[in-house]
Amino acid sequence: MTASHEFDTDTALDRIDDDRYAAQVTDRWGALGPPVNGGYLLGIGVRALQQTLDRPDPLVVSAFYLRPGQVGSAEVTVDLVRPGSRFTTGQASILQGGKETLRVLANFGDLGAHDGRTHVEDDPPDLPSPERCVDLTQGRSFPGLSLVDRIDYRVPVSPGWVTGTPSGKPCAEFWMRFSDGREPDTRCLPSLVDAGWPVVMELGVRGSSTVELTAHVRARPRPGWLACRVRTRYLMDGMHEEDFEIWDSAGTLVAQARQFAVLA
Amino acid sequence: MTASHEFDTDTALDRIDDDRYAAQVTDRWGALGPPVNGGYLLGIGVRALQQTLDRPDPLVVSAFYLRPGQVGSAEVTVDLVRPGSRFTTGQASILQGGKETLRVLANFGDLGAHDGRTHVEDDPPDLPSPERCVDLTQGRSFPGLSLVDRIDYRVPVSPGWVTGTPSGKPCAEFWMRFSDGREPDTRCLPSLVDAGWPVVMELGVRGSSTVELTAHVRARPRPGWLACRVRTRYLMDGMHEEDFEIWDSAGTLVAQARQFAVLA
Repeated sequence: MTASHEFDTDTALDRIDDDRYAAQVTDRWGALGPPVNGGYLLGIGVRALQQTLDRPDPLVVSAFYLRPGQVGSAEVTVDLVRPGSRFTTGQASILQGGKETLRVLANFGDLGAHDGRTHVEDDPPDLPSPERCVDLTQGRSFPGLSLVDRIDYRVPVSPGWVTGTPSGKPCAEFWMRFSDGREPDTRCLPSLVDAGWPVVMELGVRGSSTVELTAHVRARPRPGWLACRVRTRYLMDGMHEEDFEIWDSAGTLVAQARQFAVLA
Repeated sequence: MTASHEFDTDTALDRIDDDRYAAQVTDRWGALGPPVNGGYLLGIGVRALQQTLDRPDPLVVSAFYLRPGQVGSAEVTVDLVRPGSRFTTGQASILQGGKETLRVLANFGDLGAHDGRTHVEDDPPDLPSPERCVDLTQGRSFPGLSLVDRIDYRVPVSPGWVTGTPSGKPCAEFWMRFSDGREPDTRCLPSLVDAGWPVVMELGVRGSSTVELTAHVRARPRPGWLACRVRTRYLMDGMHEEDFEIWDSAGTLVAQARQFAVLA
């Protein structure tokens, strides 16, 4: 990880004082609807927490989206809530134009310690290799959808919502990686679990907005492509959860997230 | 719902001023390990938020457990974070002995509005009727485990950890209801998703402590028994998620929760 990679450049912080940072929210992480992808905005908050809490890995990150993020300057305030022996809890707020756009509570710790008590019930997504998959965007750019210029996606077959034939099945499995070769680490994972498309688009809806996102970071990812499994089980009265798993190139679950979202 | 029911009595609040309440944490909701069940403690925070935010239903509740809850007096502070057109976001902290034991961020709204955009992929737990199930505790009391005097559990067969033969399968399906006849509502659901036993006990471990709990409340429950589905898929280095679904007597998903926990 170097400062020259896009994700690191675009989440860079200038320290104002011990618990305040200045950031620039760029237009390079635009999603289908809002000008700023929620995961990218969260990446700024997670980075501020990581710097302040002085623990290497985010373990649990809960983000409440209060207002749409805006391209432009932002201030990040961080509050050390509880320094514990094993975990440290902190809270960060992103303020833009004097208004709070995002509030994050998170526990940080150390995923380098392994105690061996492991029991895994599920397997990684059963995907063809990235080389035998299809480029989601076929190399095209889309107005406002700058996120796809930052992240490469490889799908076994083009999703139904892309080809105008939604499948009726709100789920997806695909590969993902930063386009500029930045390798994954635990800091970027809470952002990447929001970097997919809303799988409810397979139900024919236009899109969906994140209200809250909780990400569990479970292991430090190995270099390489990340395998994603996304699923919505319960759309009820326009509100739904979306579950997002990321598995690394060695077949280890590295992040598990759930968001609560509302249809456009 | 009347004040005479145990859950309501034991989460009652005395208003100190506009954003502070006094509460008494009782010894009537003790779990296997800690003296105070985390879900019960959360119930005090949710009630304070409901009173302050003036919206009927919690929709998303994220709770960070900072220190073990203690039997005795507590102060609850509430912060109105963002009053929105559809949702209102608030934060509550529970303080005991001057220290913060729990911090909660939540969105409240109105689940009485139905827009009809619904697509449900999964079915309720396939359980025999409560009458044909087994009482988990067989009417016995257990020292420190006062929770089972407040809540009735009905299981198809006694779980392996109860009979000393853990199944190796960290999952469970069962019925639950308040013992005193209090009917479920949306306010109690963020508490009830933490009122089961840790299903990792089917792996032979002694127990588990909640670090963070996120609950989505999806619908207002009908009266009657609640059907629960609990599962842990990924125990990794002593840390695990636990997913908890609650379905009402009409077969509607009313709550979906995930917690991040660490083995004892």
